Amino acid sequence: MKALIGIIMGSDSDLPVMKEAAGILDEFGIPYELTIVSAHRTPDRLFQYAKEAKDKGLKVIIAGAGGAAHLPGMVASITTVPVIGVPVKTSTLSGMDSLYSIVQMPPGIPVATVAINGAKNAGILAAQIIGSFVPEIEKKVADYKIGLKNMVEEKASELESIGYSAYIDKMNR
Amino acid sequence: MKALIGIIMGSDSDLPVMKEAAGILDEFGIPYELTIVSAHRTPDRLFQYAKEAKDKGLKVIIAGAGGAAHLPGMVASITTVPVIGVPVKTSTLSGMDSLYSIVQMPPGIPVATVAINGAKNAGILAAQIIGSFVPEIEKKVADYKIGLKNMVEEKASELESIGYSAYIDKMNR
Amino acid sequence: MKALIGIIMGSDSDLPVMKEAAGILDEFGIPYELTIVSAHRTPDRLFQYAKEAKDKGLKVIIAGAGGAAHLPGMVASITTVPVIGVPVKTSTLSGMDSLYSIVQMPPGIPVATVAINGAKNAGILAAQIIGSFVPEIEKKVADYKIGLKNMVEEKASELESIGYSAYIDKMNR
Amino acid sequence: MKALIGIIMGSDSDLPVMKEAAGILDEFGIPYELTIVSAHRTPDRLFQYAKEAKDKGLKVIIAGAGGAAHLPGMVASITTVPVIGVPVKTSTLSGMDSLYSIVQMPPGIPVATVAINGAKNAGILAAQIIGSFVPEIEKKVADYKIGLKNMVEEKASELESIGYSAYIDKMNR
Amino acid sequence: MKALIGIIMGSDSDLPVMKEAAGILDEFGIPYELTIVSAHRTPDRLFQYAKEAKDKGLKVIIAGAGGAAHLPGMVASITTVPVIGVPVKTSTLSGMDSLYSIVQMPPGIPVATVAINGAKNAGILAAQIIGSFVPEIEKKVADYKIGLKNMVEEKASELESIGYSAYIDKMNR
Amino acid sequence: MKALIGIIMGSDSDLPVMKEAAGILDEFGIPYELTIVSAHRTPDRLFQYAKEAKDKGLKVIIAGAGGAAHLPGMVASITTVPVIGVPVKTSTLSGMDSLYSIVQMPPGIPVATVAINGAKNAGILAAQIIGSFVPEIEKKVADYKIGLKNMVEEKASELESIGYSAYIDKMNR
Amino acid sequence: MKALIGIIMGSDSDLPVMKEAAGILDEFGIPYELTIVSAHRTPDRLFQYAKEAKDKGLKVIIAGAGGAAHLPGMVASITTVPVIGVPVKTSTLSGMDSLYSIVQMPPGIPVATVAINGAKNAGILAAQIIGSFVPEIEKKVADYKIGLKNMVEEKASELESIGYSAYIDKMNR
Amino acid sequence: MKALIGIIMGSDSDLPVMKEAAGILDEFGIPYELTIVSAHRTPDRLFQYAKEAKDKGLKVIIAGAGGAAHLPGMVASITTVPVIGVPVKTSTLSGMDSLYSIVQMPPGIPVATVAINGAKNAGILAAQIIGSFVPEIEKKVADYKIGLKNMVEEKASELESIGYSAYIDKMNR
Repeated sequence: MKALIGIIMGSDSDLPVMKEAAGILDEFGIPYELTIVSAHRTPDRLFQYAKEAKDKGLKVIIAGAGGAAHLPGMVASITTVPVIGVPVKTSTLSGMDSLYSIVQMPPGIPVATVAINGAKNAGILAAQIIGSFVPEIEKKVADYKIGLKNMVEEKASELESIGYSAYIDKMNR
Repeated sequence: MKALIGIIMGSDSDLPVMKEAAGILDEFGIPYELTIVSAHRTPDRLFQYAKEAKDKGLKVIIAGAGGAAHLPGMVASITTVPVIGVPVKTSTLSGMDSLYSIVQMPPGIPVATVAINGAKNAGILAAQIIGSFVPEIEKKVADYKIGLKNMVEEKASELESIGYSAYIDKMNR
Repeated sequence: MKALIGIIMGSDSDLPVMKEAAGILDEFGIPYELTIVSAHRTPDRLFQYAKEAKDKGLKVIIAGAGGAAHLPGMVASITTVPVIGVPVKTSTLSGMDSLYSIVQMPPGIPVATVAINGAKNAGILAAQIIGSFVPEIEKKVADYKIGLKNMVEEKASELESIGYSAYIDKMNR
Repeated sequence: MKALIGIIMGSDSDLPVMKEAAGILDEFGIPYELTIVSAHRTPDRLFQYAKEAKDKGLKVIIAGAGGAAHLPGMVASITTVPVIGVPVKTSTLSGMDSLYSIVQMPPGIPVATVAINGAKNAGILAAQIIGSFVPEIEKKVADYKIGLKNMVEEKASELESIGYSAYIDKMNR
Repeated sequence: MKALIGIIMGSDSDLPVMKEAAGILDEFGIPYELTIVSAHRTPDRLFQYAKEAKDKGLKVIIAGAGGAAHLPGMVASITTVPVIGVPVKTSTLSGMDSLYSIVQMPPGIPVATVAINGAKNAGILAAQIIGSFVPEIEKKVADYKIGLKNMVEEKASELESIGYSAYIDKMNR
Repeated sequence: MKALIGIIMGSDSDLPVMKEAAGILDEFGIPYELTIVSAHRTPDRLFQYAKEAKDKGLKVIIAGAGGAAHLPGMVASITTVPVIGVPVKTSTLSGMDSLYSIVQMPPGIPVATVAINGAKNAGILAAQIIGSFVPEIEKKVADYKIGLKNMVEEKASELESIGYSAYIDKMNR
Repeated sequence: MKALIGIIMGSDSDLPVMKEAAGILDEFGIPYELTIVSAHRTPDRLFQYAKEAKDKGLKVIIAGAGGAAHLPGMVASITTVPVIGVPVKTSTLSGMDSLYSIVQMPPGIPVATVAINGAKNAGILAAQIIGSFVPEIEKKVADYKIGLKNMVEEKASELESIGYSAYIDKMNR
Repeated sequence: MKALIGIIMGSDSDLPVMKEAAGILDEFGIPYELTIVSAHRTPDRLFQYAKEAKDKGLKVIIAGAGGAAHLPGMVASITTVPVIGVPVKTSTLSGMDSLYSIVQMPPGIPVATVAINGAKNAGILAAQIIGSFVPEIEKKVADYKIGLKNMVEEKASELESIGYSAYIDKMNR
């Protein structure tokens, strides 16, 4: 099945974070492609990727990067496909640098920024975007949200019934 | 024509910022609705708005708020329609509070965050999202980007031809 | 005995922090209830909880959450019961995001914010609030403060008498 | 009528901010006293004020200060009356210094912190605290919240009916 | 004379800051070219500019940008010519966003970052770089530094002789 | 009378801030000298100043600087005379850069840092240091503190007697 | 021998940091006293300590505290003895809260602030202050600085002679 | 071969970071010298080093320091040789203090600042600067960049071919 979503990241060191975007799309059954595109080490590759994105059929691009994180914004500058940016946490500034580099885009070229290390949410947001036009996908997102609700309610029930000490004991086991 | 995009804001004091989202959608000819929904002063209205969003036919919601900015995240918690959050600049913390309150959403409930006061970009992003599925809209976004490019190139030409002193003189006139 | 204080948190992962609020209320003998209410995963539950709080007899609500922490503010928007917010430390922004999301509420809807991870203080503050109207509770808070004073003075005495090297040796043992 | 709430501030330069606490208490008809107590310039006065607070009948103390803002925390260290701290905006660090100095209290001595310059909310929070035990006061807070709701809904109606351009024109007039 | 230094900026709104780089190079008599290149609005122009830089004879590129400032880093990714980045002050985050976006480059692709709005220093740094290989330019930088020293010493003499009150009076005249 | 305190600053643009240190020393009648010493523009002058400080009889040096503020720390590295550092507010980072550059000195070389723009406090601190060994100076500081106390108490009395509205009216007149 | 310096801290958990102040004073042979004084848990003890400081013969007080760190400023408000403040690192905000709470004192009441966790420097600064009036102490500080210089020069010599790889190997052994 | 580049650092504790600058210069075959120069512990050594730099034939100086990092700026104040500053990460403020102390230099005295702990990039930047005038060095930088590109493309190919799960498994092995 042809990929609807492209997941890219600046370095394979971002993969442990970015794989969560892929994982949730697997869960939703939305076809995607995933690769490494470095704005700074492979600028030609970045250009080519962004220029072909629309004709390849991508509906959303998810781009993760850390530090002076230029990948999401540069892809957004080249294509009309909406770009979701994932600021990856850094060892020095905890991802505040990544966040500012991604979210503070100038008028004309938006990047849809999620939380620091928020790759799972990037996947869900991509699904919501597609779901706005594809009812079966919207259904899956709706079911996922019900699942979250149920999980919280079950935990709440258990906590209320066994008390916090016992609950913490179970968590630590 | 039925609104495809809902623009909401926490207070009418956000309107001077948020009107830019409306302005760009007017320019693209995308039908939208615009109103005030305060998470903290009208929580019931927030719930109702978010619950009806999908059935009303909204494809994207743009929500702007400042300070402890809960509106975008709370709308996102209730609907599957993708929510774009606009952190509005505040007088005390310059919108850093608004930004963190909007972007740092927990796993499961993303908000597509744009720059502080980035309402115009919120409108463009909404257009890009719709454009991924509606070719005429994508065409308009593409044309808009060409317009931006042309404007920069014209300014560059003029700056190169008349020099920076004359250019600044013209700017100040 | 009917709960006078409601302790809620956005996720069971907040429990290791929030249990300190419960612990101090146990110590003071003030009846409370404790459960999970997620603003983002269970918005209906949040509404219901907040709407019933006053009639249930709650005098104070303690709400802890991390990141884009909307729980305390949203509860405060729905009820007139005073809400104490506990910003939970986050792995990326150390709880600065939680703090700003909780404390920077707009005019009209206050949240009584304590320190990052300050759940014990949330419990003490709740006791002080009740103590303003219930002398026996005020007495317990006063005694607790005397206990703190005595503990510091005992430590000071010991430090003065054995010197800092011996004291640190004892601490490390 | 005997004051139920004490409003204090570190300097008369805080008065333009702190008067909003008084204003809202006037509106609610809750008796209060208001004066200047400087932690750093009048430490004896601070001690005396805090030591007498309970016996004077104060149910809540509202303390505002800026910079290295020690007033709320020091008052809280001396009395069992709950203390609401208002971080006043500073010209150099925008009140981030005031906020951290007030909210980051150590275990044992909480200060109920509101937003930077959030004196009005301090007044409302004080009213909510009293309202938890005095139904007429709770009623006033509830009515106030309904007023906020109505005001937002009226503005929303007008904005929806006249459109954003006309609305902004009216705002600017 | 062929340009040795290229000065580029993301927008003509950066010109009032960036003109100081040109001004100091004029003062040093170092030939330069100056134009607008927007990473986000004219990505193709950015690529072309960076790809031709070395063959055009540029020895240093000075690139200024604000917000999510990608221009300096993207130029650096494409050319081996050293790039000096000028973070331009922004209205929301005071240029902290610009600074982080420019300085926090990943291993492999450095940008020589100067102070926020430090365009004059960018010009001086470019002159120093060329001066390391061209003695006449180094001589000019050395003379410039002597000029700075003399100016400070003259001011110091005057201040010491007339006293601070009279000196401030003169400043205010 | 021989100067006991040396007041230096990096630039005459710091004088409007630094003059407050001189003003308070004038008030205390403590002899001082005041001049400009730029760490970056006159490094030799800095070295000479610091090397001669002790033999000239200076008991304390007050050094003010902004941005990458190296003056206080570099003077402290050369002399054993205690150095008080005044971080001067900057237009971009509000003096946070100045503060960090001055206060975060490595083990071995302290700088006694006061608040951003806290030149008056630098003068008072210098007086306190001398006052620890010269009783007449200590007496003046003690009197000054009594003056502060009296001023606050008078303002408090007036505020209590005329009420906050009248007081603010008087402030605004 | 009578103590010339008082070292106090808010909690015994600050002792591992604050002992470095004592250690360096031991090295310089300057008599000191060391104890725990909590601004928040033992306010009366704080008042008494500060009120007696001068008559006890203390020439300098070193006060360390973390979080909403009020100890140094409150001591400074009560005594004319100069107070050196040590901001202790915190687990949530890394001591930025401690730093702001200590350094941002209002006009009239300075605290001589050193680096976060800079207790050793607090001790050296205290020695410098006394050394300004007691030549033998000044001599010890001067010798200490020569010792630092010699240590750096020896390390530099070794690094230059064996190269960085061998040097790092030695460090890791 | 005579050193073209001088690498200095404030303390041998910076060596684990700064050795990366030396490593990349070794890789490029550019002769350098490396030693310790402490601005605060060996100010005379700093002066001497900076004064001799040009006549020794240094084309670029790389200076790393942490905290109140004055070394790069002070060297830049004394010599016309371009100085690259490396802000070293600190345990309390993560290197934000180092960054501000290095980058925020006043007009007249630039420091070419790289990322926090970006010593490798400092080495590459030095090579680019020399490469602007020495074609063989430029060739090496160009080849290095091709190497980076190839490495990314190989990793991308592998990731695309084996999928992210297998790729992460290989990373973790």
